Amino acid sequence: MDVGLIGIGIGLAAGLAAIGGGIGVALVIANTLQGVTRQPELRSSLQTIMFIGVPLVEALPIFAIVLSFLLLGQM
Amino acid sequence: MDVGLIGIGIGLAAGLAAIGGGIGVALVIANTLQGVTRQPELRSSLQTIMFIGVPLVEALPIFAIVLSFLLLGQM
Amino acid sequence: MDVGLIGIGIGLAAGLAAIGGGIGVALVIANTLQGVTRQPELRSSLQTIMFIGVPLVEALPIFAIVLSFLLLGQM
Amino acid sequence: MDVGLIGIGIGLAAGLAAIGGGIGVALVIANTLQGVTRQPELRSSLQTIMFIGVPLVEALPIFAIVLSFLLLGQM
Amino acid sequence: MDVGLIGIGIGLAAGLAAIGGGIGVALVIANTLQGVTRQPELRSSLQTIMFIGVPLVEALPIFAIVLSFLLLGQM
Repeated sequence: MDVGLIGIGIGLAAGLAAIGGGIGVALVIANTLQGVTRQPELRSSLQTIMFIGVPLVEALPIFAIVLSFLLLGQM
Repeated sequence: MDVGLIGIGIGLAAGLAAIGGGIGVALVIANTLQGVTRQPELRSSLQTIMFIGVPLVEALPIFAIVLSFLLLGQM
Repeated sequence: MDVGLIGIGIGLAAGLAAIGGGIGVALVIANTLQGVTRQPELRSSLQTIMFIGVPLVEALPIFAIVLSFLLLGQM
Repeated sequence: MDVGLIGIGIGLAAGLAAIGGGIGVALVIANTLQGVTRQPELRSSLQTIMFIGVPLVEALPIFAIVLSFLLLGQM
Repeated sequence: MDVGLIGIGIGLAAGLAAIGGGIGVALVIANTLQGVTRQPELRSSLQTIMFIGVPLVEALPIFAIVLSFLLLGQM
């Protein structure tokens, strides 16, 4: 039974990480799109902040994905 | 059976931390993008607040990730 | 079996605290960024309120993290 | 088995209290920041309401934290 | 097994009450802050409504906290 319960843990870690990472990154891209729409001449500086922001957003979700793989190694 | 239940705990800690960290950091980046769009000349002060804010946001989610690894050590 | 169930409790306490702390602090930083964008000359007073606000927001999430570690000591 | 299940109860009480307290207090601080941005001369009265509001928000989450510690005493 | 399950019930009642009470009261305070910002001369009447509103918001969450303590007496 152990192995099956670890499977639930992997599902929670990877699934909830997908919510955090997916919606988080989407907020960053969405606001970049709004910014470029309003001020097209700022496109390059907004894209710079976007490319700084995406990895910052993904830092913690990626940890959760890593933990999922570590749990997979325990099965 | 213990080990499998700890796996669920790791999944909850890491996955929920990914939601808190991911969406939290995204809110900070998103508002920086909006600020730079409206007042491009404030870019550097807004980025300073962003770089102060991101670690403040991540403080508690990182504790949850640390607890995940401590739990992994208990398996 | 006890130990594994305590692991789920740790995951819930730490993970939910990460949502409360992460998104809560992010709301404070986000509104500071908006304020500085609209009135750059208020930057220092807004940052003062931000630095008063962040620990107030984190008070209860930190209690939950402390309880996680106390639970870890029970495993 | 009892002890482990109480651990889940502690995690739920403390973790959910952290969401209520963290996001609740953040809403109060966020609106203080918006108010000071729009009317900087009202800063002191807005901060007074903020300092009245924060403990009112935390009243119920603190009860949940107290219950967590009482549950911990039952383990 | 009974006693541990009661612990989960206490955690759910107190924790969810903390979300309802914390975020509910915060919305009341937040809108008082916005009202005072827009019409500072109305401060005293807005605060009166706030002090009527807070106990009304907390009525039901307080019932849940009372039930948690009654459950604790059953353990």
